[in-house]
Amino acid sequence: MVASIDQPRLRVVVAGCTGYIGMQCVRLLAAHPHVDLVSLRGRSHAGRRYSEAVPGSGVELPVADGLDIVGADVVFAALPHTVTAGTAQRWLDAGAVVIDMSADFRTPDTAAYERWYGFPHPAPDLCASAVYGLVEMERDRLRDAQLIAVPGCYPTAALLGTLPALRSRTIEPHLIVDAKSGLSGAGRSPSLAVHFAEVNESVRAYGVQGHRHGDEMLSRLRRAHGEASLTFVPHLVPMSRGILATIYLRPRAGVDAKTISDLYRDFAAAETFVRYDEAPPATKSVLDSNVAALNCTAQGDTVVVTVAIDNLIKGAAGQGVQAMNVRFGLPESAGLTVSSPWP
Amino acid sequence: MVASIDQPRLRVVVAGCTGYIGMQCVRLLAAHPHVDLVSLRGRSHAGRRYSEAVPGSGVELPVADGLDIVGADVVFAALPHTVTAGTAQRWLDAGAVVIDMSADFRTPDTAAYERWYGFPHPAPDLCASAVYGLVEMERDRLRDAQLIAVPGCYPTAALLGTLPALRSRTIEPHLIVDAKSGLSGAGRSPSLAVHFAEVNESVRAYGVQGHRHGDEMLSRLRRAHGEASLTFVPHLVPMSRGILATIYLRPRAGVDAKTISDLYRDFAAAETFVRYDEAPPATKSVLDSNVAALNCTAQGDTVVVTVAIDNLIKGAAGQGVQAMNVRFGLPESAGLTVSSPWP
Amino acid sequence: MVASIDQPRLRVVVAGCTGYIGMQCVRLLAAHPHVDLVSLRGRSHAGRRYSEAVPGSGVELPVADGLDIVGADVVFAALPHTVTAGTAQRWLDAGAVVIDMSADFRTPDTAAYERWYGFPHPAPDLCASAVYGLVEMERDRLRDAQLIAVPGCYPTAALLGTLPALRSRTIEPHLIVDAKSGLSGAGRSPSLAVHFAEVNESVRAYGVQGHRHGDEMLSRLRRAHGEASLTFVPHLVPMSRGILATIYLRPRAGVDAKTISDLYRDFAAAETFVRYDEAPPATKSVLDSNVAALNCTAQGDTVVVTVAIDNLIKGAAGQGVQAMNVRFGLPESAGLTVSSPWP
Amino acid sequence: MVASIDQPRLRVVVAGCTGYIGMQCVRLLAAHPHVDLVSLRGRSHAGRRYSEAVPGSGVELPVADGLDIVGADVVFAALPHTVTAGTAQRWLDAGAVVIDMSADFRTPDTAAYERWYGFPHPAPDLCASAVYGLVEMERDRLRDAQLIAVPGCYPTAALLGTLPALRSRTIEPHLIVDAKSGLSGAGRSPSLAVHFAEVNESVRAYGVQGHRHGDEMLSRLRRAHGEASLTFVPHLVPMSRGILATIYLRPRAGVDAKTISDLYRDFAAAETFVRYDEAPPATKSVLDSNVAALNCTAQGDTVVVTVAIDNLIKGAAGQGVQAMNVRFGLPESAGLTVSSPWP
Repeated sequence: MVASIDQPRLRVVVAGCTGYIGMQCVRLLAAHPHVDLVSLRGRSHAGRRYSEAVPGSGVELPVADGLDIVGADVVFAALPHTVTAGTAQRWLDAGAVVIDMSADFRTPDTAAYERWYGFPHPAPDLCASAVYGLVEMERDRLRDAQLIAVPGCYPTAALLGTLPALRSRTIEPHLIVDAKSGLSGAGRSPSLAVHFAEVNESVRAYGVQGHRHGDEMLSRLRRAHGEASLTFVPHLVPMSRGILATIYLRPRAGVDAKTISDLYRDFAAAETFVRYDEAPPATKSVLDSNVAALNCTAQGDTVVVTVAIDNLIKGAAGQGVQAMNVRFGLPESAGLTVSSPWP
Repeated sequence: MVASIDQPRLRVVVAGCTGYIGMQCVRLLAAHPHVDLVSLRGRSHAGRRYSEAVPGSGVELPVADGLDIVGADVVFAALPHTVTAGTAQRWLDAGAVVIDMSADFRTPDTAAYERWYGFPHPAPDLCASAVYGLVEMERDRLRDAQLIAVPGCYPTAALLGTLPALRSRTIEPHLIVDAKSGLSGAGRSPSLAVHFAEVNESVRAYGVQGHRHGDEMLSRLRRAHGEASLTFVPHLVPMSRGILATIYLRPRAGVDAKTISDLYRDFAAAETFVRYDEAPPATKSVLDSNVAALNCTAQGDTVVVTVAIDNLIKGAAGQGVQAMNVRFGLPESAGLTVSSPWP
Repeated sequence: MVASIDQPRLRVVVAGCTGYIGMQCVRLLAAHPHVDLVSLRGRSHAGRRYSEAVPGSGVELPVADGLDIVGADVVFAALPHTVTAGTAQRWLDAGAVVIDMSADFRTPDTAAYERWYGFPHPAPDLCASAVYGLVEMERDRLRDAQLIAVPGCYPTAALLGTLPALRSRTIEPHLIVDAKSGLSGAGRSPSLAVHFAEVNESVRAYGVQGHRHGDEMLSRLRRAHGEASLTFVPHLVPMSRGILATIYLRPRAGVDAKTISDLYRDFAAAETFVRYDEAPPATKSVLDSNVAALNCTAQGDTVVVTVAIDNLIKGAAGQGVQAMNVRFGLPESAGLTVSSPWP
Repeated sequence: MVASIDQPRLRVVVAGCTGYIGMQCVRLLAAHPHVDLVSLRGRSHAGRRYSEAVPGSGVELPVADGLDIVGADVVFAALPHTVTAGTAQRWLDAGAVVIDMSADFRTPDTAAYERWYGFPHPAPDLCASAVYGLVEMERDRLRDAQLIAVPGCYPTAALLGTLPALRSRTIEPHLIVDAKSGLSGAGRSPSLAVHFAEVNESVRAYGVQGHRHGDEMLSRLRRAHGEASLTFVPHLVPMSRGILATIYLRPRAGVDAKTISDLYRDFAAAETFVRYDEAPPATKSVLDSNVAALNCTAQGDTVVVTVAIDNLIKGAAGQGVQAMNVRFGLPESAGLTVSSPWP
């Protein structure tokens, strides 16, 4: 399907509709002016109406088990990692554009996939054809993508906060990214690690030895720049949503900080969903919006870039909708908002 | 101005645009399909662009000092209590419909006003003409109101949770309302009472001897029913937004609980912004939406009604927009949402 | 064993040491000046040192599986409901005093037990001999108790907030208790109901149709007073620890509110771990302390009592230690604190 | 005064007793086995009993205005920055040991003082004689100190996490410290920056251009090592207490990560209040305790050290008590705890 001049309505299926990312996909797509949500797929609440499964959603479609997508133009797949990899070819064969929220197709480096998941990638050929769904980085390639791999939440923040400087070759390609995430980033499955009483009034680092999002970032940084190295440490902070990435950069010899911050201002001015703030952004200022807010400030010889996103919107569902809009020639901002509900 | 058949755009001013209620007014009105936001009034950030004053708003209008409203069809007044009372007549004379978020016009009982604020009401005549902006209670009178007194957040929750039973005379008119509010209900002015480290990990009652919202509720309950008495205890809980009201009712002799809960189901079925839940609603399920979610369950001889609202939306700004929609013949849901962004 | 004049050290076992209540038992007992913690029992971390299982405990004993208690003077049982009921006789036969944190022995009404748990009580005879571990209510009977049933957290708050008025027959014996609890009250087992992102920024009622703690309260109220009825609605609020009970009382004809509040002041003056506050107490003011803070204020014809406790200390482990102190003739406050770490 | 062999009781005054640090000083000192708290000084609650000013403290001393300290052995000064600088000489002349929680005497670099505060240091000579109260770094010099400058909360975390590697010259002396602090670190004065509804569900960086604690750290690092450079970015996270410092280190050529982590293990083994955790510590695991918990893990060529402390205890009041214990020959752990109340 190709976007017609009068912006036809798209028939969209959400597969995996009751996890945190799937829920945001449903919510955004249900209100999207050019979308007909035609089917919701989910195992855990199969047979119930969606509004029963998700309090306050206002969406009355039934939830159905199975991964069939008859007649859909688009599938949003918010399934556990490895499930989409085994199903995507079938959806593509049925003519749908697939927008995948999992890590399955984010890097052509299938060796990394095997290292993180413990078995060979189920569809290595598709990996090569997937387009990375970070619109600000891959807008042109997304216009005719059939399989879109929506970036992880951490890589979204880190890449948006790095690319202006890295592409312009104004910084050394050795980055430190210290990221802080809310608990919805851990997914909706219960565990002691997300028990309120365990994590409230607490902050901690995790994945210090290495995190699969680090590999994802690095592969993208290298595509953009060639050589690059990265230290990435994620942290959990007691909030439901939001990511703040604090990025430590070293300017190349002779480059002053003002030159670099101007690159970020220009980047924000050119992009619908990137905002440059004069002070380091609070995650609350992008809550429930598709905006990435940036600030770039020098401290001595180091340039510190801070990037705030909502991990479930710009870091997942909203980014997927933005990519869909680009793919089908819709206004890039259709169904998305730049406004946060502060407080 | 009268609403024309083709739903003309309304020219709206927000006075008091950088408090929590004013911020939500700006946000809802900026996205309202039939509104042109023409002026933002606020003292504390006068001279700056609104987007500088309110991170993440995406609204680029300037903030201006003073309370002039040239050419406005509607004024949303989110000013400190007593300020609107001194200004409303001037706005009405200029032809605007005034939608007041303060307590100034919520009750014709100007003696209560003097008791709470310590000086005589500045405009007692206007009190008598103001229409109470609880749409589900006063929809007809709102259609030609010039001055609309938007209910307080606690009365909104308590009245929506009480009226179906009280109007039908199925309960004794002696109520206990135990309400739990997030901290934005205390307003945006800094004080020790809202310091994060003082209120996080804590819950407490306040205003136990009497709270002005109790008077407001009681005056409305008596209008609806004649005789009524009320015990009302508000509490602060560590969250930013949301009110839960737990209401204890005694059925009249011979009335069974099923009869009463059916009245609530019917009420919800008839109203766009009232939802009946089969289990007691969580405030998160109405966060950032204009919905009041209700449940009615018997425990022995007592009927327990729980009502969840977002204190800043259905409890303030959203309710004001809903009232404006009714006043101008717009679709009641224009610019409002029933969906919460869970989590 | 009987307390000697020089306050001998007690050999204490904690069974169920890695749930939230067991963890607080270990912490208090490890620092108790008259206790030797001799064995820690727990299934989920068996074989590890306790300090590995519980970050920051500073306790280096091993955790062992099984429920043997060789040579112990006292067993603190913080096991799932029904487990202690099947084991207590064995411990008693071995000469230990058993301090049970579960609901197994809180009421002689074994029919209620069967109703809540779905099978007959395993040790109905023991139920009759158990002493209810609310020291302020049963101090004398605790001095020679062998089996102590520590009250539930909600009943602790509700009873302390009711008994002064009920015993003096100054109020009608028909109570409404609206209670607000932090999430540790739900236990440490992971579930969607305690997932941070589900419960943060949210408050809700639960158990409205009836809660087993309501039965427990009512049976104790009737013991204290004869006739009594109770409406009890618990709520979950987004904090880790703390309970606030708001209790609505009706004075008997001719009794003024001052008379009643003086009863509460007298009660607090006579008790080490009851504090009377001139304003409604915040739960933070009793965090991590064994104090119950009370306030009693009239609103019209109703008397509103608010009671704040730490659900894991005065509502469980601390109360058990207090009961042990009484049982063995130790200073009632040994190993306990009245001070909260605000903020 | 010199500590005698039988550990005499010290007469202690707390000046500035109702701010967050002063409150913790009072709490720890009131329970300290070798301390008589003789006077509490504070302006905002002067004339009231301390237990009225601080809910749940259980301390009944009056709060008095003014800074007199008749007959005290020790003054804990938890006053606003610059106040102690003007008063300390008087206290020293009266024979007291002064333990200062402010920044006034933390560095002999009075030029930095003037840069941050805008006027010359009131007592530059005292600066030179003050001993830095980080016990793990300055234990020997503290034994006869008269004026002890307790480190800031951020420097405490950063220095404990850096010194083992820096002193051993196993790392390059160029550090990045990314620190996350709870809101009590901002002090108790109300402001929009600590309003619950502004900061809950949000994280942000601040002081990116430079923070006075950065200067303090750097001056101490240079004393310890000679050459050193530092990038320091603090963040506010939505919790009341706790600091997590994530420190990025580069090993010198030929030094492997195991060598470095062993230095941290050795450091923890030798210190009462330093704990080495096998996984990155959560701040909750040191809440309300005087412990600094450390982890040291390699990620590629970088060594990542994470340090968790309670900002008000090890980061302030507890550290002051630990220094007092050393100064007066008391057991270093007297009146302090290693245990956190998890959850």
